[in-house]
Amino acid sequence: MGTTIKVHGTPLSTAFQRAVVCLHEKEVDYELVPVDMRAGAHKQQPFISLNPFGQVPALEHGDLQLFESRAISKYIAEEYAQKGTQLIPTDSKKKAIASVWMEVEAHQFDPVTSKLGWELLFKPMFGLTTDQTVVDEYEAKLVKVLDVYENRLSKSKYLGGDCFTLADLHHLPNLQGLLGTNMKNHIESRPHVKAWVVDITARPAWAKVLAMLKA
Amino acid sequence: MGTTIKVHGTPLSTAFQRAVVCLHEKEVDYELVPVDMRAGAHKQQPFISLNPFGQVPALEHGDLQLFESRAISKYIAEEYAQKGTQLIPTDSKKKAIASVWMEVEAHQFDPVTSKLGWELLFKPMFGLTTDQTVVDEYEAKLVKVLDVYENRLSKSKYLGGDCFTLADLHHLPNLQGLLGTNMKNHIESRPHVKAWVVDITARPAWAKVLAMLKA
Repeated sequence: MGTTIKVHGTPLSTAFQRAVVCLHEKEVDYELVPVDMRAGAHKQQPFISLNPFGQVPALEHGDLQLFESRAISKYIAEEYAQKGTQLIPTDSKKKAIASVWMEVEAHQFDPVTSKLGWELLFKPMFGLTTDQTVVDEYEAKLVKVLDVYENRLSKSKYLGGDCFTLADLHHLPNLQGLLGTNMKNHIESRPHVKAWVVDITARPAWAKVLAMLKA
Repeated sequence: MGTTIKVHGTPLSTAFQRAVVCLHEKEVDYELVPVDMRAGAHKQQPFISLNPFGQVPALEHGDLQLFESRAISKYIAEEYAQKGTQLIPTDSKKKAIASVWMEVEAHQFDPVTSKLGWELLFKPMFGLTTDQTVVDEYEAKLVKVLDVYENRLSKSKYLGGDCFTLADLHHLPNLQGLLGTNMKNHIESRPHVKAWVVDITARPAWAKVLAMLKA
Protein backbone atom coordinates (compact mmCIF):
# COMPACT_ATOMS: atom_id res chain seq x y z
CA MET A 1 0.00 0.00 0.00
CA GLY A 2 1.37 3.36 -0.99
CA THR A 3 -1.02 5.40 1.15
CA THR A 4 0.41 7.34 4.05
CA ILE A 5 0.06 5.84 7.50
CA LYS A 6 -1.83 8.00 9.98
CA VAL A 7 -1.14 7.61 13.68
CA HIS A 8 -3.70 9.10 16.07
CA GLY A 9 -2.43 10.03 19.51
CA THR A 10 -0.18 12.28 21.50
CA PRO A 11 3.56 11.98 22.23
CA LEU A 12 2.75 12.11 25.97
CA SER A 13 1.23 8.64 25.74
CA THR A 14 3.65 5.76 26.33
CA ALA A 15 1.57 3.51 24.06
CA PHE A 16 1.75 6.10 21.29
CA GLN A 17 5.54 6.25 21.76
CA ARG A 18 5.72 2.46 21.42
CA ALA A 19 3.99 2.51 18.03
CA VAL A 20 5.92 5.52 16.75
CA VAL A 21 9.40 4.33 17.73
CA CYS A 22 8.66 1.24 15.66
CA LEU A 23 7.82 3.40 12.62
CA HIS A 24 11.11 5.26 13.07
CA GLU A 25 13.09 1.99 13.37
CA LYS A 26 11.48 0.84 10.11
CA GLU A 27 12.09 4.25 8.46
CA VAL A 28 8.41 4.45 7.54
CA ASP A 29 6.88 7.89 7.09
CA TYR A 30 3.65 8.67 8.88
CA GLU A 31 1.30 11.53 9.59
CA LEU A 32 0.53 12.38 13.23
CA VAL A 33 -3.14 13.08 13.93
CA PRO A 34 -3.20 14.77 17.35
CA VAL A 35 -5.75 13.55 19.92
CA ASP A 36 -6.40 16.05 22.69
CA MET A 37 -6.44 13.68 25.65
CA ARG A 38 -6.70 16.52 28.19
CA ALA A 39 -10.02 17.43 26.54
CA GLY A 40 -11.07 13.77 26.61
CA ALA A 41 -11.06 13.43 22.82
CA HIS A 42 -9.92 9.79 23.10
CA LYS A 43 -13.20 8.90 24.86
CA GLN A 44 -15.42 10.49 22.20
CA GLN A 45 -16.28 10.25 18.52
CA PRO A 46 -14.62 10.20 16.10
CA PHE A 47 -11.75 8.56 17.99
CA ILE A 48 -13.76 5.74 19.57
CA SER A 49 -14.71 4.59 16.08
CA LEU A 50 -11.01 3.80 15.69
CA ASN A 51 -10.63 2.26 19.15
CA PRO A 52 -13.79 1.40 21.11
CA PHE A 53 -11.70 1.18 24.29
CA GLY A 54 -10.87 4.89 23.97
CA GLN A 55 -7.09 4.56 24.20
CA VAL A 56 -4.38 5.97 21.96
CA PRO A 57 -2.75 5.17 19.60
CA ALA A 58 -4.84 4.14 16.63
CA LEU A 59 -3.44 3.66 13.14
CA GLU A 60 -4.95 4.03 9.69
CA HIS A 61 -3.29 2.60 6.61
CA GLY A 62 -5.63 2.93 3.66
CA ASP A 63 -8.80 1.14 4.76
CA LEU A 64 -7.01 -0.80 7.49
CA GLN A 65 -7.68 0.48 11.02
CA LEU A 66 -5.69 -0.82 13.98
CA PHE A 67 -5.31 -0.12 17.68
CA GLU A 68 -3.30 -1.58 20.59
CA SER A 69 0.29 -0.39 20.32
CA ARG A 70 1.84 -3.88 20.21
CA ALA A 71 -0.50 -5.00 17.40
CA ILE A 72 0.51 -1.86 15.52
CA SER A 73 4.23 -2.50 16.02
CA LYS A 74 3.88 -6.12 14.88
CA TYR A 75 1.99 -5.04 11.76
CA ILE A 76 4.63 -2.41 10.90
CA ALA A 77 7.49 -4.84 11.57
CA GLU A 78 5.96 -7.47 9.26
CA GLU A 79 4.51 -5.18 6.58
CA TYR A 80 7.89 -3.44 6.17
CA ALA A 81 10.05 -6.49 6.85
CA GLN A 82 12.58 -5.39 4.20
CA LYS A 83 12.91 -1.78 5.41
CA GLY A 84 14.93 -0.32 8.31
CA THR A 85 15.81 -2.44 11.35
CA GLN A 86 14.70 -6.06 11.24
CA LEU A 87 12.57 -6.28 14.39
CA ILE A 88 11.28 -9.85 14.17
CA PRO A 89 13.72 -12.76 13.58
CA THR A 90 13.00 -14.85 10.48
CA ASP A 91 14.23 -18.13 11.98
CA SER A 92 11.21 -19.80 13.61
CA LYS A 93 13.01 -20.74 16.84
CA LYS A 94 14.56 -17.28 17.25
CA LYS A 95 11.20 -15.73 16.49
CA ALA A 96 9.57 -17.87 19.20
CA ILE A 97 12.17 -16.77 21.76
CA ALA A 98 11.63 -13.10 20.86
CA SER A 99 7.90 -13.73 21.19
CA VAL A 100 8.38 -15.09 24.71
CA TRP A 101 10.10 -11.86 25.76
CA MET A 102 7.44 -9.74 24.08
CA GLU A 103 4.90 -11.55 26.26
CA VAL A 104 7.14 -11.01 29.29
CA GLU A 105 7.09 -7.28 28.56
CA ALA A 106 3.30 -7.34 28.21
CA HIS A 107 2.49 -9.45 31.26
CA GLN A 108 5.39 -8.99 33.70
CA PHE A 109 7.01 -5.62 32.97
CA ASP A 110 4.21 -3.41 31.68
CA PRO A 111 1.61 -3.90 34.45
CA VAL A 112 4.24 -3.12 37.11
CA THR A 113 5.90 -0.16 35.40
CA SER A 114 2.63 1.35 34.19
CA LYS A 115 1.39 1.37 37.78
CA LEU A 116 4.66 2.94 38.99
CA GLY A 117 4.53 5.50 36.18
CA TRP A 118 0.98 6.43 37.14
CA GLU A 119 1.90 6.89 40.80
CA LEU A 120 5.28 8.58 40.35
CA LEU A 121 4.93 10.58 37.11
CA PHE A 122 1.33 11.08 36.00
CA LYS A 123 -0.33 11.62 39.39
CA PRO A 124 2.05 14.48 40.29
CA MET A 125 1.51 15.92 36.78
CA PHE A 126 -2.27 15.94 37.38
CA GLY A 127 -1.98 17.33 40.93
CA LEU A 128 -2.92 13.99 42.51
CA THR A 129 -1.18 12.45 45.54
CA THR A 130 1.14 9.47 45.08
CA ASP A 131 0.07 6.44 47.13
CA GLN A 132 3.29 5.24 48.77
CA THR A 133 1.76 1.87 49.73
CA VAL A 134 1.12 1.15 46.08
CA VAL A 135 4.61 2.33 45.15
CA ASP A 136 6.17 0.00 47.74
CA GLU A 137 4.12 -2.95 46.52
CA TYR A 138 5.01 -2.40 42.87
CA GLU A 139 8.64 -1.54 43.60
CA ALA A 140 8.99 -5.02 45.13
CA LYS A 141 7.49 -6.50 41.96
CA LEU A 142 9.81 -4.43 39.76
CA VAL A 143 12.85 -5.70 41.63
CA LYS A 144 11.82 -9.31 40.94
CA VAL A 145 11.33 -8.60 37.23
CA LEU A 146 14.67 -6.80 36.96
CA ASP A 147 16.44 -9.68 38.71
CA VAL A 148 15.18 -12.01 35.97
CA TYR A 149 16.23 -9.48 33.31
CA GLU A 150 19.72 -9.16 34.82
CA ASN A 151 20.19 -12.91 34.58
CA ARG A 152 18.77 -13.07 31.04
CA LEU A 153 20.92 -10.14 29.86
CA SER A 154 24.06 -11.71 31.34
CA LYS A 155 23.60 -14.49 28.75
CA SER A 156 21.99 -12.62 25.84
CA LYS A 157 22.82 -9.10 24.61
CA TYR A 158 19.12 -8.30 24.11
CA LEU A 159 16.05 -9.76 25.80
CA GLY A 160 14.79 -11.44 22.66
CA GLY A 161 18.18 -12.73 21.48
CA ASP A 162 21.45 -11.49 19.97
CA CYS A 163 19.82 -8.60 18.11
CA PHE A 164 17.50 -5.75 19.01
CA THR A 165 13.89 -6.81 18.35
CA LEU A 166 10.35 -5.75 19.23
CA ALA A 167 10.91 -7.51 22.58
CA ASP A 168 13.33 -4.71 23.50
CA LEU A 169 11.56 -1.93 21.62
CA HIS A 170 8.28 -2.47 23.50
CA HIS A 171 10.08 -1.66 26.77
CA LEU A 172 11.36 1.77 25.70
CA PRO A 173 8.52 4.07 26.82
CA ASN A 174 8.14 2.68 30.33
CA LEU A 175 11.91 2.29 30.79
CA GLN A 176 12.34 5.94 29.90
CA GLY A 177 9.67 6.80 32.45
CA LEU A 178 11.45 4.82 35.18
CA LEU A 179 14.65 6.74 34.46
CA GLY A 180 12.80 9.89 35.56
CA THR A 181 11.99 8.41 38.98
CA ASN A 182 13.95 7.01 41.93
CA MET A 183 13.30 3.54 40.43
CA LYS A 184 16.33 4.38 38.28
CA ASN A 185 18.48 3.00 41.12
CA HIS A 186 17.19 -0.49 40.46
CA ILE A 187 18.37 -0.21 36.87
CA GLU A 188 21.76 1.28 37.66
CA SER A 189 22.57 -1.30 40.33
CA ARG A 190 22.24 -4.15 37.81
CA PRO A 191 25.15 -3.96 35.34
CA HIS A 192 23.59 -5.93 32.49
CA VAL A 193 20.23 -4.22 32.80
CA LYS A 194 22.01 -0.86 32.93
CA ALA A 195 24.07 -1.58 29.80
CA TRP A 196 20.92 -2.76 27.97
CA VAL A 197 18.98 0.35 28.95
CA VAL A 198 21.87 2.64 27.93
CA ASP A 199 22.10 0.79 24.60
CA ILE A 200 18.44 0.79 23.60
CA THR A 201 17.57 4.29 24.85
CA ALA A 202 20.48 5.62 22.72
CA ARG A 203 18.96 4.35 19.47
CA PRO A 204 18.34 7.14 16.94
CA ALA A 205 14.71 6.04 16.52
CA TRP A 206 14.12 6.60 20.23
CA ALA A 207 15.88 9.98 20.12
CA LYS A 208 13.30 11.02 17.52
CA VAL A 209 10.46 10.11 19.88
CA LEU A 210 12.09 12.03 22.75
CA ALA A 211 12.47 15.03 20.43
CA MET A 212 8.69 14.94 19.81
CA LEU A 213 8.15 15.10 23.56
CA LYS A 214 10.31 18.20 23.86
CA ALA A 215 8.72 19.90 20.86
CA MET B 1 11.35 -31.15 14.21
CA GLY B 2 10.16 -34.69 14.79
CA THR B 3 10.78 -34.66 18.53
CA THR B 4 7.80 -34.81 20.88
CA ILE B 5 6.64 -31.56 22.43
CA LYS B 6 6.65 -31.56 26.23
CA VAL B 7 4.30 -29.22 28.08
CA HIS B 8 5.04 -28.62 31.75
CA GLY B 9 2.09 -27.62 33.91
CA THR B 10 -1.22 -28.68 35.36
CA PRO B 11 -4.71 -28.67 33.82
CA LEU B 12 -5.90 -26.49 36.74
CA SER B 13 -3.89 -23.56 35.35
CA THR B 14 -5.75 -21.34 32.90
CA ALA B 15 -2.47 -20.48 31.16
CA PHE B 16 -1.68 -24.19 30.75
CA GLN B 17 -5.18 -24.70 29.27
CA ARG B 18 -4.50 -21.86 26.78
CA ALA B 19 -1.36 -23.55 25.45
CA VAL B 20 -2.87 -27.03 25.38
CA VAL B 21 -6.13 -26.11 23.61
CA CYS B 22 -3.93 -24.71 20.86
CA LEU B 23 -2.07 -28.02 20.53
CA HIS B 24 -5.42 -29.82 20.25
CA GLU B 25 -6.69 -27.38 17.59
CA LYS B 26 -3.50 -28.03 15.61
CA GLU B 27 -3.79 -31.81 16.20
CA VAL B 28 -0.24 -31.87 17.52
CA ASP B 29 0.69 -34.63 19.97
CA TYR B 30 2.43 -33.67 23.18
CA GLU B 31 3.58 -35.14 26.45
CA LEU B 32 2.28 -33.60 29.69
CA VAL B 33 4.94 -33.13 32.37
CA PRO B 34 2.99 -32.51 35.60
CA VAL B 35 4.11 -29.62 37.84
CA ASP B 36 2.84 -29.94 41.41
CA MET B 37 1.81 -26.34 42.01
CA ARG B 38 0.27 -27.14 45.40
CA ALA B 39 3.74 -28.22 46.52
CA GLY B 40 5.24 -25.06 44.98
CA ALA B 41 7.19 -26.97 42.33
CA HIS B 42 6.71 -24.08 39.86
CA LYS B 43 8.77 -21.80 42.11
CA GLN B 44 11.71 -24.21 42.40
CA GLN B 45 14.30 -25.96 40.29
CA PRO B 46 14.12 -27.62 37.87
CA PHE B 47 11.01 -25.70 36.72
CA ILE B 48 12.43 -22.20 37.15
CA SER B 49 15.16 -23.10 34.67
CA LEU B 50 12.36 -23.33 32.12
CA ASN B 51 10.56 -20.18 33.31
CA PRO B 52 12.43 -17.83 35.65
CA PHE B 53 9.10 -16.18 36.56
CA GLY B 54 7.92 -19.48 38.07
CA GLN B 55 4.64 -19.75 36.16
CA VAL B 56 3.22 -22.64 34.15
CA PRO B 57 3.14 -23.61 31.35
CA ALA B 58 6.58 -24.13 29.86
CA LEU B 59 7.20 -25.98 26.60
CA GLU B 60 10.14 -27.99 25.32
CA HIS B 61 10.51 -28.89 21.67
CA GLY B 62 13.90 -30.44 21.08
CA ASP B 63 16.34 -27.84 22.37
CA LEU B 64 13.81 -25.01 22.15
CA GLN B 65 12.41 -23.90 25.52
CA LEU B 66 9.46 -21.52 25.71
CA PHE B 67 7.18 -20.04 28.34
CA GLU B 68 4.26 -17.54 28.43
CA SER B 69 1.13 -19.28 27.13
CA ARG B 70 0.49 -16.81 24.29
CA ALA B 71 4.05 -17.12 22.98
CA ILE B 72 3.60 -20.90 23.04
CA SER B 73 0.29 -20.73 21.17
CA LYS B 74 1.78 -18.41 18.52
CA TYR B 75 4.75 -20.75 18.03
CA ILE B 76 2.48 -23.80 17.67
CA ALA B 77 0.13 -21.96 15.29
CA GLU B 78 3.04 -20.92 13.04
CA GLU B 79 5.20 -24.03 13.33
CA TYR B 80 2.24 -26.25 12.39
CA ALA B 81 0.58 -23.80 10.00
CA GLN B 82 -0.43 -26.63 7.64
CA LYS B 83 -1.93 -28.89 10.33
CA GLY B 84 -5.36 -28.75 12.04
CA THR B 85 -7.24 -25.46 12.39
CA GLN B 86 -5.62 -22.41 10.81
CA LEU B 87 -5.34 -20.07 13.79
CA ILE B 88 -3.51 -17.10 12.23
CA PRO B 89 -4.79 -15.54 8.97
CA THR B 90 -2.28 -15.52 6.12
CA ASP B 91 -3.50 -12.22 4.60
CA SER B 92 -1.47 -9.43 6.20
CA LYS B 93 -4.44 -7.14 6.89
CA LYS B 94 -6.55 -9.94 8.35
CA LYS B 95 -3.58 -11.05 10.41
CA ALA B 96 -3.17 -7.50 11.77
CA ILE B 97 -6.85 -7.36 12.79
CA ALA B 98 -6.58 -10.73 14.56
CA SER B 99 -3.44 -9.40 16.27
CA VAL B 100 -5.38 -6.36 17.55
CA TRP B 101 -7.92 -8.64 19.23
CA MET B 102 -5.17 -10.85 20.66
CA GLU B 103 -3.80 -7.72 22.32
CA VAL B 104 -7.31 -6.80 23.50
CA GLU B 105 -7.54 -10.20 25.17
CA ALA B 106 -4.14 -9.71 26.79
CA HIS B 107 -4.61 -6.12 27.97
CA GLN B 108 -8.37 -5.59 28.39
CA PHE B 109 -9.96 -8.99 29.03
CA ASP B 110 -7.31 -11.02 30.85
CA PRO B 111 -6.41 -8.60 33.67
CA VAL B 112 -10.10 -8.16 34.55
CA THR B 113 -11.17 -11.79 34.30
CA SER B 114 -8.03 -13.14 36.00
CA LYS B 115 -8.79 -10.88 38.97
CA LEU B 116 -12.44 -12.02 39.04
CA GLY B 117 -11.36 -15.65 38.73
CA TRP B 118 -8.99 -15.23 41.64
CA GLU B 119 -11.68 -13.67 43.84
CA LEU B 120 -14.62 -15.88 42.84
CA LEU B 121 -13.05 -19.26 42.02
CA PHE B 122 -9.53 -19.67 43.40
CA LYS B 123 -9.90 -17.88 46.75
CA PRO B 124 -12.87 -20.08 47.79
CA MET B 125 -10.91 -23.14 46.57
CA PHE B 126 -8.01 -22.18 48.86
CA GLY B 127 -10.27 -21.33 51.83
CA LEU B 128 -9.68 -17.56 51.44
CA THR B 129 -12.39 -14.90 51.65
CA THR B 130 -13.63 -13.17 48.48
CA ASP B 131 -13.21 -9.38 48.61
CA GLN B 132 -16.56 -8.05 47.39
CA THR B 133 -15.16 -4.53 46.86
CA VAL B 134 -12.65 -5.92 44.38
CA VAL B 135 -15.37 -8.01 42.71
CA ASP B 136 -17.58 -4.93 42.29
CA GLU B 137 -14.72 -2.89 40.82
CA TYR B 138 -13.75 -5.57 38.32
CA GLU B 139 -17.34 -6.48 37.49
CA ALA B 140 -17.81 -2.88 36.31
CA LYS B 141 -14.69 -3.24 34.15
CA LEU B 142 -15.92 -6.56 32.75
CA VAL B 143 -19.23 -5.00 31.72
CA LYS B 144 -17.38 -2.33 29.73
CA VAL B 145 -15.24 -4.92 27.95
CA LEU B 146 -18.25 -7.11 27.15
CA ASP B 147 -20.13 -4.09 25.76
CA VAL B 148 -17.30 -3.57 23.27
CA TYR B 149 -17.29 -7.30 22.46
CA GLU B 150 -21.07 -7.29 21.89
CA ASN B 151 -20.72 -4.52 19.36
CA ARG B 152 -17.74 -6.17 17.67
CA LEU B 153 -19.47 -9.56 17.50
CA SER B 154 -22.61 -8.00 15.99
CA LYS B 155 -20.44 -7.18 12.96
CA SER B 156 -17.94 -10.05 12.93
CA LYS B 157 -18.63 -13.72 13.72
CA TYR B 158 -15.40 -14.01 15.68
CA LEU B 159 -13.37 -11.34 17.48
CA GLY B 160 -10.43 -11.58 15.11
CA GLY B 161 -12.52 -11.79 11.91
CA ASP B 162 -14.76 -14.22 10.02
CA CYS B 163 -12.94 -17.32 11.26
CA PHE B 164 -11.90 -18.70 14.64
CA THR B 165 -8.32 -17.59 15.40
CA LEU B 166 -5.93 -17.32 18.34
CA ALA B 167 -7.79 -14.10 19.23
CA ASP B 168 -10.79 -16.23 20.24
CA LEU B 169 -8.82 -19.23 21.49
CA HIS B 170 -6.87 -17.17 24.03
CA HIS B 171 -10.16 -16.24 25.73
CA LEU B 172 -11.31 -19.82 26.37
CA PRO B 173 -9.84 -20.56 29.82
CA ASN B 174 -11.03 -17.36 31.50
CA LEU B 175 -14.41 -17.43 29.71
CA GLN B 176 -14.96 -20.96 31.00
CA GLY B 177 -14.09 -19.70 34.48
CA LEU B 178 -16.65 -16.88 34.25
CA LEU B 179 -19.33 -19.39 33.29
CA GLY B 180 -18.83 -20.97 36.71
CA THR B 181 -19.61 -17.68 38.51
CA ASN B 182 -22.50 -15.21 38.65
CA MET B 183 -20.62 -13.17 36.01
CA LYS B 184 -22.26 -15.62 33.58
CA ASN B 185 -25.28 -13.27 33.57
CA HIS B 186 -23.24 -10.60 31.79
CA ILE B 187 -22.49 -13.08 29.02
CA GLU B 188 -26.03 -14.42 28.71
CA SER B 189 -27.62 -10.96 28.55
CA ARG B 190 -25.57 -10.06 25.46
CA PRO B 191 -26.86 -12.15 22.49
CA HIS B 192 -23.77 -11.90 20.29
CA VAL B 193 -21.36 -12.52 23.15
CA LYS B 194 -23.51 -15.45 24.28
CA ALA B 195 -23.57 -17.01 20.79
CA TRP B 196 -19.79 -16.57 20.49
CA VAL B 197 -19.16 -18.18 23.88
CA VAL B 198 -21.50 -21.09 23.09
CA ASP B 199 -19.71 -21.56 19.75
CA ILE B 200 -16.12 -21.48 20.91
CA THR B 201 -16.59 -23.43 24.16
CA ALA B 202 -18.25 -26.22 22.08
CA ARG B 203 -15.12 -26.79 20.00
CA PRO B 204 -13.80 -30.37 20.25
CA ALA B 205 -10.32 -29.10 21.17
CA TRP B 206 -11.75 -27.31 24.19
CA ALA B 207 -13.79 -30.39 25.18
CA LYS B 208 -10.48 -32.28 25.36
CA VAL B 209 -9.08 -29.71 27.79
CA LEU B 210 -12.22 -29.88 29.96
CA ALA B 211 -11.90 -33.68 29.97
CA MET B 212 -8.36 -33.31 31.38
CA LEU B 213 -9.80 -31.20 34.21
CA LYS B 214 -12.34 -33.88 35.10
CA ALA B 215 -9.81 -36.71 34.88
